[in-house]
Amino acid sequence: MNIVTCIAPVNIAVIKYWGKRDEKLILPLNDSISATLNTEQMHAKTTVMTSPEFKEDKIWLNGKEESFDNPRLQNCLKEIRRRAKENVNSEGDIDCSWCVHICSQNNFPTAAGLASSAAGYACLVYALAELYKVEGDITAIARQGSGSACRSILGGFVHWHQGSASDGSDSIATQIVPESHWSQLRILILVFLERKLDSYRSKCSLGMQKTAETSELLKHRISHSVPRRIQEITEAIVSKNFEKFAELTMKDSNQFHAVCLDTFPPNVYMNDTSHAIVSLIHAYNNALGENKVAYTFDAGPNACLYLLEPDVPQFLSVINHVFPPASQTSEYLKGIPVESTPVPKSLVTSIGLEPQESGLLKYVIHTKVGRGPQILTESNQHLLNESGQPKF
Amino acid sequence: MNIVTCIAPVNIAVIKYWGKRDEKLILPLNDSISATLNTEQMHAKTTVMTSPEFKEDKIWLNGKEESFDNPRLQNCLKEIRRRAKENVNSEGDIDCSWCVHICSQNNFPTAAGLASSAAGYACLVYALAELYKVEGDITAIARQGSGSACRSILGGFVHWHQGSASDGSDSIATQIVPESHWSQLRILILVFLERKLDSYRSKCSLGMQKTAETSELLKHRISHSVPRRIQEITEAIVSKNFEKFAELTMKDSNQFHAVCLDTFPPNVYMNDTSHAIVSLIHAYNNALGENKVAYTFDAGPNACLYLLEPDVPQFLSVINHVFPPASQTSEYLKGIPVESTPVPKSLVTSIGLEPQESGLLKYVIHTKVGRGPQILTESNQHLLNESGQPKF
Repeated sequence: MNIVTCIAPVNIAVIKYWGKRDEKLILPLNDSISATLNTEQMHAKTTVMTSPEFKEDKIWLNGKEESFDNPRLQNCLKEIRRRAKENVNSEGDIDCSWCVHICSQNNFPTAAGLASSAAGYACLVYALAELYKVEGDITAIARQGSGSACRSILGGFVHWHQGSASDGSDSIATQIVPESHWSQLRILILVFLERKLDSYRSKCSLGMQKTAETSELLKHRISHSVPRRIQEITEAIVSKNFEKFAELTMKDSNQFHAVCLDTFPPNVYMNDTSHAIVSLIHAYNNALGENKVAYTFDAGPNACLYLLEPDVPQFLSVINHVFPPASQTSEYLKGIPVESTPVPKSLVTSIGLEPQESGLLKYVIHTKVGRGPQILTESNQHLLNESGQPKF
Repeated sequence: MNIVTCIAPVNIAVIKYWGKRDEKLILPLNDSISATLNTEQMHAKTTVMTSPEFKEDKIWLNGKEESFDNPRLQNCLKEIRRRAKENVNSEGDIDCSWCVHICSQNNFPTAAGLASSAAGYACLVYALAELYKVEGDITAIARQGSGSACRSILGGFVHWHQGSASDGSDSIATQIVPESHWSQLRILILVFLERKLDSYRSKCSLGMQKTAETSELLKHRISHSVPRRIQEITEAIVSKNFEKFAELTMKDSNQFHAVCLDTFPPNVYMNDTSHAIVSLIHAYNNALGENKVAYTFDAGPNACLYLLEPDVPQFLSVINHVFPPASQTSEYLKGIPVESTPVPKSLVTSIGLEPQESGLLKYVIHTKVGRGPQILTESNQHLLNESGQPKF
């Protein structure tokens, strides 16, 4: 077959990747760890196809044709073809000189601020590897598309090693535990309303590079904080120690945003609503005497929360109380359904936070840890038709 | 005379003090540098009086009697009396066993988020030193009231040395340059509207201590960043190099808020409006090709801006354009008057920021660098009457 379709997951880092030691190969300044999210709620889907009939390489992203002249895309394809030629078993089937057509889309809004490029490149590289029968590690290829994409190649909890080789061959992702290991773990993604003041924030894609160039505190983070946290959170994940896992996750999110603020000019990604969620979670954990919920924020204002399944209904009710939705529609909670629970008055009192104006929180996605990319074998799943044109 | 009244200035740090190595003596973890602001716009005013007739120590703050049972107040008074007894010249005049009455008030709203305790303790210690005829350094006494109060004892630019003695005797403030040195320098204090989301912020007075206990990045700030910045900004002040002064001021403000964010739980003082001002200033400086304005933020959302006198009218017009006041009344701009100037359209275009909703910025105080505390000799200036009761 000269066509492959697959889906690949989003991942949410608990120890953050921020700063590169090599811009071209996308080699990071520090190790990072993430959870891979279930593809039932969120995924990228990609069809790749090659044929002697194709006149040129083409790519369609989220329903729109884009330029193929993208060095990261080119690097991934070149590397896959180089590896395909090394693999004698794959000979005969497909000719590496044929052009490719690629069609990809996400089933979640880009507005969710989730690193859609990670799922997208993981999906692309996974599909190309299947198409060209590439064997062995492909995380280092996905990494060259988008750094954190290497973590979306695997399920469960994943460790991206910074590596030391100058060619990046040891900067790969490995699985810490599979998705079945900590089955109680749940993830809530809180998507906030965009406000006018948010338009003032630097949406600079060079943010990461600027931090490496100008933050004096980043050096300490890389040399002292991250190595110890990588070790400690791995132990917490393996032993399912939520208290410790939550503390390290929150501290690392805060420190990541601290080095962004120490950048010149500063990179500010969290907004007042983000910080209000942080206050709420500390108040909630305090009221219950243990870390019931952990927050983490990527390069955007939306919150990703980790918690255990038994705590989801009550915590969601607290969120609903403090951040009342604009309207209580079925669209508000997406993903795994949750039975609503009343919040005990004593808990409201001890949290001590007054409800905010309604509508600040647009919607919540409820998901869990999941497996890596999956091949879809039914032909009606392909995004390209038999002549290699998108079906939309 | 057994009564003294004086006024003392506010100071705004450009290299921030954050973290103590001794809580009781208020000994800092790093050196800091500030500008003392002109008392014409903002000051604390304090009358101290002692008399054999007084039955007990009393204190009135901003029109309200407060408990004298405040260890910081007690420490200052005790230290002044100890020093008074050492000074043979002062004998006979006043008996250190007499009770004291203290009445103090600020002429600026506490809501401005300015460190009113610094001006207040500087004023108290300066007045007591005059009353008890204490000679020599009194900055180390003011420091025991409120750390940064030691910097308000002197005019111009002031350097508070962390010192190394365990009794704090070398943790004193010294003047870098007098107020006359950089006469073009102006300060704008931007006071923002309080919003509902702000009520979620930790208003924890233990913030500083928490950072010292939990921030891993603070160590790097203290050992690496601050010592170099202290040296560099001193040179910039002495040579009136605004470009460098502005860069260091902004970087240190950002780093201070970065270590606050790296605290656990995080201390967040800036809000979305604060960050919008930061973006505006970077855009403005970029548009003009040099650092025309520098921002600095203390433990609150309001901005303190440094700029040179010729740039004030245009920059204020830009602020007015982007943050339109709720109503254009005389109350909007307080302090030194400024002639309004239209903003060139080309500048608006190159800054590229759309006006925000009106009223986010409540008012602006326009001031400059000033001298240290001053004694008021006219008896109608006293806040206490002849029998030691407040005049209000």
